Amino acid sequence: MDERAIGVFDSGVGGLTVLRALREAMPRESFVYLGDTARLPYGTKGPSTVRRYAEQAAAHLVARDVKMIVIACNTASAVAVEHLRERLDPVPVVGVIEPGARALCAATTTKRVAVLATPGTVSGGAYEQAIARIDPATRVISIACALFVSLAEEGWVRGPVTEAAVEAYLRPLLSSAEGTPEIDALVLGCTHFPVLRGAVEEFLGPNVTVVDSAVTTAQVVSSQLASLGLNTADFRGQVRFLATDEPVRFAQVGRFFIGQPLSAADVERIDL
Amino acid sequence: MDERAIGVFDSGVGGLTVLRALREAMPRESFVYLGDTARLPYGTKGPSTVRRYAEQAAAHLVARDVKMIVIACNTASAVAVEHLRERLDPVPVVGVIEPGARALCAATTTKRVAVLATPGTVSGGAYEQAIARIDPATRVISIACALFVSLAEEGWVRGPVTEAAVEAYLRPLLSSAEGTPEIDALVLGCTHFPVLRGAVEEFLGPNVTVVDSAVTTAQVVSSQLASLGLNTADFRGQVRFLATDEPVRFAQVGRFFIGQPLSAADVERIDL
Repeated sequence: MDERAIGVFDSGVGGLTVLRALREAMPRESFVYLGDTARLPYGTKGPSTVRRYAEQAAAHLVARDVKMIVIACNTASAVAVEHLRERLDPVPVVGVIEPGARALCAATTTKRVAVLATPGTVSGGAYEQAIARIDPATRVISIACALFVSLAEEGWVRGPVTEAAVEAYLRPLLSSAEGTPEIDALVLGCTHFPVLRGAVEEFLGPNVTVVDSAVTTAQVVSSQLASLGLNTADFRGQVRFLATDEPVRFAQVGRFFIGQPLSAADVERIDL
Repeated sequence: MDERAIGVFDSGVGGLTVLRALREAMPRESFVYLGDTARLPYGTKGPSTVRRYAEQAAAHLVARDVKMIVIACNTASAVAVEHLRERLDPVPVVGVIEPGARALCAATTTKRVAVLATPGTVSGGAYEQAIARIDPATRVISIACALFVSLAEEGWVRGPVTEAAVEAYLRPLLSSAEGTPEIDALVLGCTHFPVLRGAVEEFLGPNVTVVDSAVTTAQVVSSQLASLGLNTADFRGQVRFLATDEPVRFAQVGRFFIGQPLSAADVERIDL
């Protein structure tokens, strides 16, 4: 039994939705969450830059003696998961792309799915590749929804701007003939996007299943921990929060993503 | 006569509009432009983080022996201009807020003006303070338009999303009675916003003068250079471009801001 914490990192606070799912699945585990808020977003940056940032974040967590690394950020998972596995071996590394692809393949019956993600995640084709490994017959439409990040940060969950943006990005998913969706499952491939889930579901209607990868990622982490004998029997795990920008901002926005009270005093400012 | 270059920095490529105005005003001067594209945007980050980033960018330029620093980024100007003046003395430092405030005060006759800027620029009140120093009787409405940055980067100059966002942010500028603007001049207080100038002007109508600070900043730089005896008599100045994210991205987006061909080979990747 290993009482060391699990390290989780993201470009900002969006990954707290993943942390929340991890804690619900593994309440006895401890976690260190690192949000690289000073350099966010990752989704519009080049792969070599994101890889370098991911490496710095993971190295910081490993220096704090974590027993596993979870990359909560889709963009960092897309470009850095293999790289980090090589660099950090034997510390296991779990990303969100693989679990997200698995959830998507489980949810579709028509084998026509969509991925909504950042430009950085879409351009590398990581979801397509992960889905092809699970079921090569599944057809994937990927859409880079850059504006969704700002909409989520602005807190514009609904309203005319969000509706116009949802329509602009998702219109290609509707058949030109009947105006109904050509897919039956969709993954929100960025930790910010669950904030806009209601607006996306409303636009696409009840025949499209919207999956987010947080819960599936938590299942993968849980089973990997068990199979490696790394899980703990502690009564109640602890959580530490680290951020590269000011703690007060992390706490202000973060509490909506983690769904619990969070104050600046809970957050340690670090430099990477 | 001083043939050293002028150092210009911004969080990304938006400041190239300022560089363009500088070159038009001073074709004989050489420039080194640094875009901190790997860590953009600055406008949603905390003041201490932006101050640290501005210090690193300015130090890099000073190490390249520039004779003056121009902060092309409004957010960095708002939180770091005084700090950099102290740190870099005797190298002169010019920001865009002061020239923008001057342009605004020159443009208004009703003494009721608006500032559209990032959350980071608005929250510090830098434009209000600069305007109060020039004309304390001028009333200022500041609006943080966080989404405008993504709209500009997405290239959505017009269309339903941009129109909805312009309306959401600028509606407070209209009088509730007649629906006409309560201001007669407005500054685009972020280097990205000139991309949306058409949409802003269309919403507010012909009675509002929209100023951007690039031209006024160039005038201030030109007169400071002359008064300090730092200007050059070279026939034709050179420009070097530095970026912290990948050069190919800088060149792709940058060419629209600077209005000239720009290839990745023209851009040197640096780390800060």
